[in-house]
Amino acid sequence: MIYAKDNLDFKARRLRAVKTDLNSGASVLARKALEDILDYTDCCDVPNTPELLEELTDLVNLLGNARPSRVAVANLLQRFLQTLPELPDDLRRARGRAAVHAEELIETARRAQMDAVRHCMAELSDGMTIMTHSVSSAVMALLTACQQAGKKIQVIVTESRPGMEGRNLARYLNRQGIETQFITEAQMAHFVVQADKVIVGADSLLRDGSLVSKAGSRLLALAARDAGIPFWVLAESFKHSLILPEDVVLEEMPEEELQLESMSRVQVRNVYFDLVPARLITAWADEEGVRVVFRSLAECLPAPVG
Amino acid sequence: MIYAKDNLDFKARRLRAVKTDLNSGASVLARKALEDILDYTDCCDVPNTPELLEELTDLVNLLGNARPSRVAVANLLQRFLQTLPELPDDLRRARGRAAVHAEELIETARRAQMDAVRHCMAELSDGMTIMTHSVSSAVMALLTACQQAGKKIQVIVTESRPGMEGRNLARYLNRQGIETQFITEAQMAHFVVQADKVIVGADSLLRDGSLVSKAGSRLLALAARDAGIPFWVLAESFKHSLILPEDVVLEEMPEEELQLESMSRVQVRNVYFDLVPARLITAWADEEGVRVVFRSLAECLPAPVG
Repeated sequence: MIYAKDNLDFKARRLRAVKTDLNSGASVLARKALEDILDYTDCCDVPNTPELLEELTDLVNLLGNARPSRVAVANLLQRFLQTLPELPDDLRRARGRAAVHAEELIETARRAQMDAVRHCMAELSDGMTIMTHSVSSAVMALLTACQQAGKKIQVIVTESRPGMEGRNLARYLNRQGIETQFITEAQMAHFVVQADKVIVGADSLLRDGSLVSKAGSRLLALAARDAGIPFWVLAESFKHSLILPEDVVLEEMPEEELQLESMSRVQVRNVYFDLVPARLITAWADEEGVRVVFRSLAECLPAPVG
Repeated sequence: MIYAKDNLDFKARRLRAVKTDLNSGASVLARKALEDILDYTDCCDVPNTPELLEELTDLVNLLGNARPSRVAVANLLQRFLQTLPELPDDLRRARGRAAVHAEELIETARRAQMDAVRHCMAELSDGMTIMTHSVSSAVMALLTACQQAGKKIQVIVTESRPGMEGRNLARYLNRQGIETQFITEAQMAHFVVQADKVIVGADSLLRDGSLVSKAGSRLLALAARDAGIPFWVLAESFKHSLILPEDVVLEEMPEEELQLESMSRVQVRNVYFDLVPARLITAWADEEGVRVVFRSLAECLPAPVG
């Protein structure tokens, strides 16, 4: 079929928004993508239900493939399609049914995050210092919930070059009245010893238990391991993926972000994500609870030095 | 005695220059401080030789204490005093004698770096990829020497927030025609696996074999260890110190450098230096040669996770 111009415009616009959104965490990005689907159930220009389904499937695939490191987006969108009830022939009713389904899934995702936060909070004590890296909506919700529950936590946050999303996190924590230390990534090993726990969000969790998260996460996990500080991941289960580490795509963003002039011999690299091996992760918190992972010493060992 | 105003002005100016010089490596800073001493032998306003000696001693102490993480400065300046021959009574001749001594020490320091570079280069093979962090004049000299000797090395450099001295290093390597990748600190663990060796300079080497170097060095050493990549330190022996790690001062610089607005709950931290424990260091290169350190597995183990 030839797609209506309005449909193409809508999809191009939403695709661009997902591709260029470098500041939202994976959960927020996944929910935003579902909201795009919700909008599209209403506004897409189609003559009948089969073509509505075709258009929704097309948008799901477009947005789901836009950010390969952020498996949560594709997962949640695919779940929308896979659990979509059979749509009625009547186009108006079909749009309504698809919209309700998208709304339910947005609500399910929101609840999953709240439950994961609740389980994680139950493990934190009054007066603890939590260190995090980059920004995760789940970690923000956790820190806010702790403060509201009267647990007097302190937080160490990184500025998170090049996106600098740590600045907004510091501003948010300041507004919440949470005592915060703000550092460069380079200082992570120096400051992790002050933390009782490191807690980060996830872009995706791979088949072997490793984590895809913002660049720098692996360094922080190594520093935490070396200092004997637990490294926790707070992430809803829809971030699970069947991908193996060797197949994961760590997205690289435009080199202009690093603000270095172009030079013939210098290649500016801007890989946005990091792979944290399972052996460096101490616990997982999701909507089912917190699972502390006990590992043998041998499992935690670094590779021999060549 | 009451110091002449010109003397006070000179010393205040040089002290400020040493304190605010955040871009020079420790070797360069130490040589610059000796050049200040050299200038002062000539220009300081004193009536006789004993007061010349007193003034030089005062400047040595001022500059030597200005940057506690950069032990090389104090070491080299103290060596100037300790090896200063007895000065003749004649003031003009005394100035000349002290100046020659300062010049000889500058030359000795320069030769020590050249010799360390030569020993280190002998261990590097054609086609190797070297990763470094921040800027060290010794590492720059090493990379240049490799290129001039026709060893086709590639280099991975970090931007080195907040001073961003990595940008100048990238520009320098580009001018030398050396293939370079330029990354943020956050990407160090992702890129270290491409390196054959990590080689960094030193601000000081402590009594127990640990290293004081630019913030982020410890993270890079951990990432190198985890990936099985050797972590080498290239540093002249005048950077050795008798200080123990627990007594070392890791200088903190103005928080304004991180460009975050002031907020009541947010403390901006800008610790410029890192302590890299001896167990993470694979080899030392100095003017005597390269010593590869063999460690038992137990020595390399991280602390148990609490």
